[in-house]
Amino acid sequence: VIVTLLTDFGWADHYVASMKGVLYSVNPAVRIVDISHDVRAHDVGQAAYLLDACYCDFPMGTVHLVVVDPGVGSPRRALALSAGGYFFVGPDNGLFGGVVETNADARVRSIEPDLASSRAVSSTFHGRDIFAPAAAALAGGQPLDELGPPAADVVALDRHRPSVDADGEMESRILHIDRFGNCITGYRAEDFPDGKWNDWIFSVGTHEISRTRRFYAEGSDGDPFVIEGSSAYLEVAVDRGSAAESLRAATGDVVTAKRRVSR
Amino acid sequence: VIVTLLTDFGWADHYVASMKGVLYSVNPAVRIVDISHDVRAHDVGQAAYLLDACYCDFPMGTVHLVVVDPGVGSPRRALALSAGGYFFVGPDNGLFGGVVETNADARVRSIEPDLASSRAVSSTFHGRDIFAPAAAALAGGQPLDELGPPAADVVALDRHRPSVDADGEMESRILHIDRFGNCITGYRAEDFPDGKWNDWIFSVGTHEISRTRRFYAEGSDGDPFVIEGSSAYLEVAVDRGSAAESLRAATGDVVTAKRRVSR
Amino acid sequence: VIVTLLTDFGWADHYVASMKGVLYSVNPAVRIVDISHDVRAHDVGQAAYLLDACYCDFPMGTVHLVVVDPGVGSPRRALALSAGGYFFVGPDNGLFGGVVETNADARVRSIEPDLASSRAVSSTFHGRDIFAPAAAALAGGQPLDELGPPAADVVALDRHRPSVDADGEMESRILHIDRFGNCITGYRAEDFPDGKWNDWIFSVGTHEISRTRRFYAEGSDGDPFVIEGSSAYLEVAVDRGSAAESLRAATGDVVTAKRRVSR
Repeated sequence: VIVTLLTDFGWADHYVASMKGVLYSVNPAVRIVDISHDVRAHDVGQAAYLLDACYCDFPMGTVHLVVVDPGVGSPRRALALSAGGYFFVGPDNGLFGGVVETNADARVRSIEPDLASSRAVSSTFHGRDIFAPAAAALAGGQPLDELGPPAADVVALDRHRPSVDADGEMESRILHIDRFGNCITGYRAEDFPDGKWNDWIFSVGTHEISRTRRFYAEGSDGDPFVIEGSSAYLEVAVDRGSAAESLRAATGDVVTAKRRVSR
Repeated sequence: VIVTLLTDFGWADHYVASMKGVLYSVNPAVRIVDISHDVRAHDVGQAAYLLDACYCDFPMGTVHLVVVDPGVGSPRRALALSAGGYFFVGPDNGLFGGVVETNADARVRSIEPDLASSRAVSSTFHGRDIFAPAAAALAGGQPLDELGPPAADVVALDRHRPSVDADGEMESRILHIDRFGNCITGYRAEDFPDGKWNDWIFSVGTHEISRTRRFYAEGSDGDPFVIEGSSAYLEVAVDRGSAAESLRAATGDVVTAKRRVSR
Repeated sequence: VIVTLLTDFGWADHYVASMKGVLYSVNPAVRIVDISHDVRAHDVGQAAYLLDACYCDFPMGTVHLVVVDPGVGSPRRALALSAGGYFFVGPDNGLFGGVVETNADARVRSIEPDLASSRAVSSTFHGRDIFAPAAAALAGGQPLDELGPPAADVVALDRHRPSVDADGEMESRILHIDRFGNCITGYRAEDFPDGKWNDWIFSVGTHEISRTRRFYAEGSDGDPFVIEGSSAYLEVAVDRGSAAESLRAATGDVVTAKRRVSR
């Protein structure tokens, strides 16, 4: 069974290694895959975006262990979820809002550390002391329901699904800026009538982006364009350049869409 | 079977994780090793250097999956190769020029996505949709020839093998600057008469480097020296310092060599 | 069997991959875990800290392979150790001082390359040519004593265990600054009478830190506080901020402790 790791621990400390050591100690048969450890410190929204973007690419039964946890040691709940054929483990701070919203079969439990592990629990590193043992237990076949009581009202973040304003324009935001400077927006083709997002013009700040492309290298100029990205979100991109730099855009910036005027 | 990954995707996005999820989904028995994901965005030459430097260190049969792919979605070919006892998968943009040149037994196929996988193919992420499935298929024993028709004229980059100029001097370039600031050149001992590279003086820009060393800590000054590095290339290095900084050198800079004058 | 890797090789070169290729070539059954490759170039002290902080989190029998090796090729010894149920492999430059000091059962051997591997040995990359083969041999069950003769007087670094000065104050140093800016000091609760470290006030440079917390998010101000961290060391931290920035502190800075005055 695969356990993925997604944290804001970076690679320069031993924190990720400690979690892996615990995972292997509890369950030597587990296979570990790093999603990312470069989430900005304490940035729950970025981690939720990355999780939503890739959890379905893994084999069914995979356990996704997510630790971006500024509230470690406080009374915030520790969650274990089953949803869409996957398991999820981490703090209840918004990481799993998207998973719960998009999977009707989601079952959520509040982890009681004693039920997941006999390990002593620090007040500063639940990734090692609670979440990794719980993930290893799930990977080893322990039933979800044995980890703790049912939990309702999972914390959710605003996912910036498009909304229509008074003028008939749509509005969303930049969810993420990737390594290449591509600005991934909250729009999906399905949000537009008949899926025809090409009939709309997008704006970020004062920049209007009217070009569209099917693939990044289609055409040779350096102007920004809109493209349907690999996670089904529309992106603003520049071929072999950074759209984020061209547009001076940041995660969270508003992206509006209005219908093209027929000429 | 091992599948290695070498990309320019970085660690801050979910792209590498998506490829790993697909690899494990197709072939749960595969073992995945990251070569690097910190290749500069779109820098095919850097990826080719790294691949050439380490692919032979892996067990025979290893599948090397390389995705630095600015032309994704365009008509550039997707390749699968067998060479020197290894397999290689990635776009036809220069990544595999060195592998083909140095392995007389190289066999190259142009991947037809339908033959590698039943997966839907996006126009923006062939690493996930074409290359990872093809690599997983090869790792699972699918014959190379079943992935598509033979492909000739693999794209190759200039590998800066030394050339002799009119004055009897040799010329190559800096292939790569590593984390320590060592400047790896295109020279190998075998390029010099009787392998005696110590009889030559090297220059980078206006800097002449006449010192040679057998190991980095041999001697205690901070001057640059030439040393035979671990991949058989000659390097310009500084002990516990950065030769690239001392020489203000960059990848691609010319490195000349001329015979020492007997005194 | 698990082999962990801890180096200063970074992720942008092929050096880590070469070591992994050799490990798998010698012993295909090994499981490899990266502790970190982002140790500052040549910073033996930082690697020793990270090793000490996490080696016990792994299953017994794990082989910890540590290569921060500015003296590669020089006569510095290559070590293989057994201590506390774990194995350790790397150069004799201080990396294993803490392991030897804290494990009375430590047994140390000086690796003779011929006994560990039939591989040719370069003078610039012993991680690949000596240490990885030795680690793979240990992981495969080869007895430690077969790797070379006993070695005494392992090089040790100052671990900044607290000392009491003339005024009855204690003094230690910042051992490490983590990704979050937490300043991990050399103090442990056990260094204080009855473990009551809360009865002491700590100073870094001109900053006096009198607040203490049990978990990072306990309280809402942005002031620095002292907290018992996850590796049992006391840390100076700021909630959702960087104590290192607030205090302009660096690794190696002195941290003094004096008793609180009863009021």
